[in-house]
Amino acid sequence: MKRREFFRKGVISTIGLGALGSSFQAFGSVDFTRKGIAKNIIFLVSDGMSAGTLTMADILLKHKEGRSSEWIKLYEENTVRRALMETASANSFVTDSAAAGSAWGGGMRVRNGALNVGPNGEKPVPILQKFKAAGKAVGCVTSVQITHATPASFCVNNSSRNAQPIIAEDYIKLKFDCMLGGGLNYFHTDKRTDKKDLIAASKQAGIDFVQTKDELNSLSGTKPILGVFAEEGLPYAIDRENNTDLKAITPTLAEMTQTAIKHLSKNPQGFVMQVEGGKVDWAAHANDTAALLYDQVDFDQAIKVAMDFAQADGETLVIITTDHGNSNPGLFYGNQANRNFEKLYSTKASNEWVLNQITPEFTTNRLVEFVEAHQNYAMSGEDAEAILKGFTLGEDGLYNTNRLPVAIYASLQSPHTSVQWAGTNHSADHVELVMFGPGSEHLKGFVRNFELHNFLLQAAGMPQEYIV
Amino acid sequence: MKRREFFRKGVISTIGLGALGSSFQAFGSVDFTRKGIAKNIIFLVSDGMSAGTLTMADILLKHKEGRSSEWIKLYEENTVRRALMETASANSFVTDSAAAGSAWGGGMRVRNGALNVGPNGEKPVPILQKFKAAGKAVGCVTSVQITHATPASFCVNNSSRNAQPIIAEDYIKLKFDCMLGGGLNYFHTDKRTDKKDLIAASKQAGIDFVQTKDELNSLSGTKPILGVFAEEGLPYAIDRENNTDLKAITPTLAEMTQTAIKHLSKNPQGFVMQVEGGKVDWAAHANDTAALLYDQVDFDQAIKVAMDFAQADGETLVIITTDHGNSNPGLFYGNQANRNFEKLYSTKASNEWVLNQITPEFTTNRLVEFVEAHQNYAMSGEDAEAILKGFTLGEDGLYNTNRLPVAIYASLQSPHTSVQWAGTNHSADHVELVMFGPGSEHLKGFVRNFELHNFLLQAAGMPQEYIV
Repeated sequence: MKRREFFRKGVISTIGLGALGSSFQAFGSVDFTRKGIAKNIIFLVSDGMSAGTLTMADILLKHKEGRSSEWIKLYEENTVRRALMETASANSFVTDSAAAGSAWGGGMRVRNGALNVGPNGEKPVPILQKFKAAGKAVGCVTSVQITHATPASFCVNNSSRNAQPIIAEDYIKLKFDCMLGGGLNYFHTDKRTDKKDLIAASKQAGIDFVQTKDELNSLSGTKPILGVFAEEGLPYAIDRENNTDLKAITPTLAEMTQTAIKHLSKNPQGFVMQVEGGKVDWAAHANDTAALLYDQVDFDQAIKVAMDFAQADGETLVIITTDHGNSNPGLFYGNQANRNFEKLYSTKASNEWVLNQITPEFTTNRLVEFVEAHQNYAMSGEDAEAILKGFTLGEDGLYNTNRLPVAIYASLQSPHTSVQWAGTNHSADHVELVMFGPGSEHLKGFVRNFELHNFLLQAAGMPQEYIV
Repeated sequence: MKRREFFRKGVISTIGLGALGSSFQAFGSVDFTRKGIAKNIIFLVSDGMSAGTLTMADILLKHKEGRSSEWIKLYEENTVRRALMETASANSFVTDSAAAGSAWGGGMRVRNGALNVGPNGEKPVPILQKFKAAGKAVGCVTSVQITHATPASFCVNNSSRNAQPIIAEDYIKLKFDCMLGGGLNYFHTDKRTDKKDLIAASKQAGIDFVQTKDELNSLSGTKPILGVFAEEGLPYAIDRENNTDLKAITPTLAEMTQTAIKHLSKNPQGFVMQVEGGKVDWAAHANDTAALLYDQVDFDQAIKVAMDFAQADGETLVIITTDHGNSNPGLFYGNQANRNFEKLYSTKASNEWVLNQITPEFTTNRLVEFVEAHQNYAMSGEDAEAILKGFTLGEDGLYNTNRLPVAIYASLQSPHTSVQWAGTNHSADHVELVMFGPGSEHLKGFVRNFELHNFLLQAAGMPQEYIV
């Protein structure tokens, strides 16, 4: 297949997924010169990070640990270039993660829910397929399912982000060099409705399929890696850190990032990878304050790994951003704001974890004590009663874990933490976009999300036919 | 009085307000060179502007008028340097406007509520007193009371921001060159409990005291101006624009800024002024969406006035920022997000205005029609009933205008606009800080609010003894 033809048919068409659309829209281009080409790109996304999330994680670290967040340190030390990014999708001022990721991954805005399938059926070649075709090593790392919207938006075309079982099959065909996250349910024969065994299929395809931190660390060589460390998303960082069993098997986002860089950088032609702090978004949807802050801190540690590599390497472009705001939380004014926020320094569990421990046997007193022990604040008996009433019983007589009283728990918690929320969904806020390394000098002060696609290709010195 | 002595006693001590404190804290300094000194400084503050406020005003203008906001245009065209600013006060992660303004105005963090009076009684000389002493023209422009926290923080020392009657007297003693805003109640003999006539006193002191746009425009010469255009704050921009009488007497923030620049720039030694979009903060406190967006747009027009002057002048440092977040609003995800937000393009009134028109005679039907006519959305009869029930009657049988059902009105409005709020008060969010012109090249990527005090003095080439 000639190289030009690839951009009409795509890599994946050669392995049976059908022809891609041929109409790429041009969105203008940056005048990149050949000097200062990025050999490697690390693209980090704290999914659904509102301005308040970035701020509160920084305040937490400054006052709990006496250090700035890695993200804010980049501003303090004038290390990076910074822009604001517009995040709209093809059909809304407010994007979902699939459309936002597709803007970067395919260079065009698509409707919410779609993965690199445009409003008129366009199927732009996903960016990691392009970089792979050009000889680079490619991969994704995430704290949610590896088949979830944000990593998938760099890898595949699908009209629906919900097609995770199909995306899992795509990954085996694509044989990308390092894919780490959660989502075992989409690979395991027992959990797939079609009963396909994608773990066996991965191995047959020559992929190292691993399910624990130790298995991951024991790998060497250059075979493609598919690491899947949880049935769906990985546990929240705060719950992982406070549970010995989870901690033993679950790598942190920073550890996965470190491993992926080590593996991908074996390729002499360089690498391109995406790192997603995906559970920041989930915590925001659930208004789960401790989960949010400590997953943002977990993401922050991945920034350090990427920046340490890039600063030593000198040929790596690092991008740090989010795809959209979520729930616009903030630390709010009040006489007790500091004292309340400081309780979060020693919180030991997410709201989700606490709610999952509660059984029909819990009295209000027991709930009050349980919350005090794990989340460090004094819930009133009235609030405890309201929360217990919020549970629904399943047919098995147990509490229904799919319908936990998340919202009522969060709203009753706010007066104790001074952290408040504007909703439980995405916002249209323009978001932070940060760059370091070769190519970053071309960053304008304001960027529309889809413009990043060509920006990355040009920063890496990719030939003109790769540009949309 | 020797110059050094001034920094111990302050200008205002020579006119009877007592000695200022002598212990200035040193917060480090920037290595400014003499070249590229700012002759003039225009410091613009959109008070209480969360990230979502900046975003939504930009989306509104892009889609209603087909142009970017002036603020975002500065990023799009790479015109400015940009930083993130930490906004804490001496006693809280979450500041009020007095402490935030004092950080800039006096160079130290003070407790919430104080105006340049430190936790240990320190009384740093306010920055406009310094610039005045150095021979520059100085002034403030605001859409709230000219005696309100943010302008006052550049002008006076007072342990309480509530001392507006005293601050009004201070202004007459200070005789600053151009002070424009609201707050007639603090100058008028009928409204002051001490019955002092500060309008007469102003005139005796040689100040031009004006109360309408026409009076302001008719002034010429170089006498100090005190322009007070409303009893308390000025009307919201959206209400001013939709009321012929209000529009006739009330200048816009851009018009006041234009007039002030014209007046202050007569001084051959240059000028320093603050411009505050103060009602952005009030609208956020009230979760009043249309008021918020159109006052942010009103502020945005003042940016244009300042930037046009600075770009032509070449010797003016422009600073654009906010003192803290407020209520962290956002345009939120949903099938109707675009359609809902688009209703705001043709809204004709603030919530405050609507609520003030409602009388005990209103039926639910009439309220529904009234809201449709002025705010362009279809309120349900149930919601109308809940709002009418939210009013309280005064002894005069009229609705109590001090206790309008603001919160219930806003919460019932959110589903119609898709704009949601995280609270009704300030947040700790790190905020935008933008600079243009001489001195801006020294801006670091992250700034603590109190650092701006010395930054401004150094940008203007003020002698070392002015630095705290």
